[in-house]
Amino acid sequence: MVKKAVCLISGGLDSSVTSFIAKERGFDIYALSFTYGQRHEKETLCAKKIAKTVGAKDHVVLDVDLGKFGGSSLVDRSSGSIPIHDMNDIGNKIPSTYVPARNTVFLSLALAYAETIDADAIFIGINAVDYSGYPDCRPIYIEAYQKMANLATKKGVEGKPIKIEAPLLHLTKSEIIQKGKDLNAPFENTWSCYRGEKIACGQCDSCLLRLKGFKDAGVKDPLKYETLPEWYRK
Amino acid sequence: MVKKAVCLISGGLDSSVTSFIAKERGFDIYALSFTYGQRHEKETLCAKKIAKTVGAKDHVVLDVDLGKFGGSSLVDRSSGSIPIHDMNDIGNKIPSTYVPARNTVFLSLALAYAETIDADAIFIGINAVDYSGYPDCRPIYIEAYQKMANLATKKGVEGKPIKIEAPLLHLTKSEIIQKGKDLNAPFENTWSCYRGEKIACGQCDSCLLRLKGFKDAGVKDPLKYETLPEWYRK
Repeated sequence: MVKKAVCLISGGLDSSVTSFIAKERGFDIYALSFTYGQRHEKETLCAKKIAKTVGAKDHVVLDVDLGKFGGSSLVDRSSGSIPIHDMNDIGNKIPSTYVPARNTVFLSLALAYAETIDADAIFIGINAVDYSGYPDCRPIYIEAYQKMANLATKKGVEGKPIKIEAPLLHLTKSEIIQKGKDLNAPFENTWSCYRGEKIACGQCDSCLLRLKGFKDAGVKDPLKYETLPEWYRK
Repeated sequence: MVKKAVCLISGGLDSSVTSFIAKERGFDIYALSFTYGQRHEKETLCAKKIAKTVGAKDHVVLDVDLGKFGGSSLVDRSSGSIPIHDMNDIGNKIPSTYVPARNTVFLSLALAYAETIDADAIFIGINAVDYSGYPDCRPIYIEAYQKMANLATKKGVEGKPIKIEAPLLHLTKSEIIQKGKDLNAPFENTWSCYRGEKIACGQCDSCLLRLKGFKDAGVKDPLKYETLPEWYRK
């Protein structure tokens, strides 16, 4: 019997590569994406393209309006503009783009989906290297989540726990891009920019991390950017 | 400074009593309820009344369409009618009304809310005595959730963990009703029936547990029922 995996697909680069890893490992893929008061719909469009390209058996797009709680600049339009940082600032502290308990919310909805369809695993594209500032991107967090999930679910109680798979956890952005290239992940259908313009800004934290990854991997990023940092152009 | 608590209020008896316990302990209450493809809106109406009566500072009602995943009879209208059981059957195995990972989903959204508003605790009305069939109603599950939550959140990392409070965990239904009576919780504004009719059925698992609790506590249930079991009328 073919194994089933729920893949959290945001439309970003990491979750897209993650879904191709799940496919490589032989899973039937059930994609799960969220709309949650983002500034833009671009990510959801990319998520749909990725789910299609990876051959997902189904794709649930769930609206979870985290904006009702207020909070982070990623969900709350009133709390000021997306910050622009220097590369050196990234990862030193919990950034203002941190969305409270976001991975916990997403994993928990994936867990509900996985248990409903009797899936064997959940794939999530979190990464501890480039996002060390986020508490819910750490290996110790994933371990604790797995223990909780084993106790929370019928499948866990019956000795068939749903495995939380975070295959990018210890990879650098450049290694993630190399892996995606090997698996023919369509980078042109991924979106990283925190802003919702037609063209990626090339200035926000997320664009900078992405561009640095492509630069380090020696791979050309197929996306168009409004401006490119000087170190990328060199 | 007054402490803040996010209270999960379903409109049922247990979560209502729980919110009055949070109030008794001196917390400012931020109510959180969900609409999730229920068969009826009755619970949400009750949740609103309870939030008002308990003096909640705010009440967020979030739509989370778990029905998109399919599954349990509580969320999936297509999976057959609500089962009617004998009292002796309840709690012996995982019931068909079990909603996959429901408490994990609800606690995780409460965690996001709590971290956003800088709350100190989350109150949830789960109970291990009458709901032993549900894996996510066990003390061991709550402990594991607490550990995960401490690692997931900015507040946890900063040494000010958000405490998961489940004050009904070890109480019988009859003790919960006694506690609610002591705190003047308005039982008439709570709803337990799995069906969405104007009057509670008095036959489903949830009605039976409620009625047995009132009977054992020697308190009169102010709700009207379509039919009452013989043992209650005696």
